[in-house]
Formats: sequence, structure tokens, C-alpha cells
Amino acid sequence: MDYYSGQISRLIESLSSLPGIGSKSAQRMAFHILNMPETEVEKLAASILEAKRKVRYCRQCFTLTDDEICPICSNQNRDQKQIMVVENPRDLAAYEKTGKFDGVYHVLHGAISPMLGIGPSDIRLKELMQRLQGDVREVIIATNSSLEGETTAMYISKLIKPTGIKVTRIASGVPVGGDLEYIDEVTLLRALEGRTEL
Amino acid sequence: MDYYSGQISRLIESLSSLPGIGSKSAQRMAFHILNMPETEVEKLAASILEAKRKVRYCRQCFTLTDDEICPICSNQNRDQKQIMVVENPRDLAAYEKTGKFDGVYHVLHGAISPMLGIGPSDIRLKELMQRLQGDVREVIIATNSSLEGETTAMYISKLIKPTGIKVTRIASGVPVGGDLEYIDEVTLLRALEGRTEL
Repeated sequence: MDYYSGQISRLIESLSSLPGIGSKSAQRMAFHILNMPETEVEKLAASILEAKRKVRYCRQCFTLTDDEICPICSNQNRDQKQIMVVENPRDLAAYEKTGKFDGVYHVLHGAISPMLGIGPSDIRLKELMQRLQGDVREVIIATNSSLEGETTAMYISKLIKPTGIKVTRIASGVPVGGDLEYIDEVTLLRALEGRTEL
Repeated sequence: MDYYSGQISRLIESLSSLPGIGSKSAQRMAFHILNMPETEVEKLAASILEAKRKVRYCRQCFTLTDDEICPICSNQNRDQKQIMVVENPRDLAAYEKTGKFDGVYHVLHGAISPMLGIGPSDIRLKELMQRLQGDVREVIIATNSSLEGETTAMYISKLIKPTGIKVTRIASGVPVGGDLEYIDEVTLLRALEGRTEL
């Protein structure tokens, strides 16, 4: 870093604080930015500041949005009685891309992880339970298939069961197109346990 | 991208215009930025704008710098008569990291590439030739070992030879620690041609 001037070093340092950006990528990005037209650079800086300043949590599902209520929650064509619980907005986007889910979401912003000291009160669980006092038919738990995701799923299902609302969990198993040879044993066992009759 | 709000989409789009950043990385970076404290986000945006506004080319060697003349060119302990020609400031930084070169540099900002329509007048060649009217002992050509880098090296050496100034080219061969088994044939042949007596 000392081989660059102060301004360039500061830029490289800022960029390498972003996730997945090592010092080599940060250097490439920095020199790319220095070669961009000034108006483009201003647009980039503005998009960063404006997103940070204007984006907030949807009051209902806690996804990130420009409005008080996100477009999904305010869409009356969506089934407001079916709530899919996800860990973060990227997971929500992944399901939206399928185009096949017409219910609504609840974004936890994390998963329970005793290892990282993240407990039930650190994620948006209380807010989920409050939503369930309304008219809800089904809660689909779509947390990740990781230790934390499974722990969170178990915890939520135990909380919800006494309310009598149906709780389901998305299936885990062999990914479509996956070659058995390259799939880990835990997934193979899960796929076996979850087998369905043909 | 349509699964995110306008502000978030714009941020993801801006970030994915950077080199080496695909849409997945841009999403991760965007959500990371939205979770950063506002002061940190302001610092990031400022470092981008300030670098773009304040960084300029060194009047002598054309590397990027905060000053009119870069710290290397203005350092009187460096041998101003030995000029290493590189394609870009990152290559300069790579040689500076070795700590073993005490001459100065000349940054071409590119390489001759008929394929991409980049000719000799599109890189800082004229400026190199002007520098050679001063007191110069040796020009070390350290352009990349790619087709474009080699073409540029050949072109520059032909231009300089009539002036009587010594022109050299950095060696190409097997990288230190490289396993012959995994090295391409062209490099192996280069290493053979460039063999030295022990």
C-alpha cells in the first residue's frame, strides 16, 4: 500500500473493507475508478450515500425498502396469510426470482448462533410473533440449511406450534442437476430421509 | 435486480460496473454498505470522490500521484538515469514491493494492441522519448509477458536503439517455486531459450 500515494491508499483501504474484496481486487477497483469519467464517479458515490440514507426496513416484513411498506407487503394480489421466514433480503430475492411464491415474507436479519452470541432477541423474531396475532394460515421456514439456520427453524417452530398455525420447513436434499458423487454425506442422508413415493 | 427497491438496485448496478464484481458480489457489497454505520459510508463515498478529484499523473513518469511530481521521481537517492518502463501503476507497485530497484519509472498506461485498436500514440510513448533527450543510461522494458506487452517491448526497443541508449528487457521464464508440470509450453520454451550458464 505504501507504493501508492495517500489518496490512492485511502481509496484502496476503504474498498478492501468491503466483503469479499481483497487487496488485489481493491487495487484493480481503485484504478478503474480513477480512470472513470468524473460524472460516473459522482454517480457511484451518490448511489452509495443515497442507498444508505434512504433505504429502511419495511414496517411489516423488515426487508430493506425505499418505502414504509415494501412493494411485496403492499401488493394485494399476494397471499398475506402465508408468510415465508428468511434470514436476509438476499434470500427473499432468491425466492422472488423463482416467480412461484405468491405469499409474503418475514426477514429475520440473521439466525440464532450460540457460537457468535446471536440469540433469539437479536433477530426479528418478536416482530414475527406479533404478525402471527393477525390472520395467518401458514408459516414457511426458509432459513438456510446450515447449523444456525436449522437451529433457528427448530426454535421458531416450537414457538409457533402452540398458536395452532401451520408451520412448514422447505425441503433439503440433492440440488437439481447435482451429481451424487460430489454431494456431501449429510445432504445425501437428508435426501434419503426426505424421500417421497413415486 | 427487480427484487430489490430502486435505491438498492441502483447501488447494486453501480457496484457491478466495477471490474471483477459480478451481480452476486455486488449484492453482498450493497447489503454490507447498508449495514455499515453512516459515518463509515460517508468515508467510503468521500474516499472515492477525493481520489478521483485529487489524484493526477506525475508530470515526469505519469504514474498516479497526489503531487505534481511523484515521490519516486522527486527522490534524489534514486538513479534518475535508469528508467523502467511499465504498463500501469500496479506494475510499478509490484516492482517497488521488491525494494531492489532504485531507478525511476515510466508508466505507459497501456500496451500496443492492434486487436483492441490501441496504437503507439495511445500510450505514453512520445513522453518516454522526450525523457530520453535528457541524461539516461538505460531503459529497462518491463511490460507484461503477453502478446501486447511483447509487441510494445519490441516497438520501444526499435525506437530507442538509434539513440544509442542501452535497452534491456526483464527475463521471462519459470516463476520461482513454479512446478514445471503446471507451466505452459510457451513459458517452458522461453525458460529454455533464456537459460544461463552455472
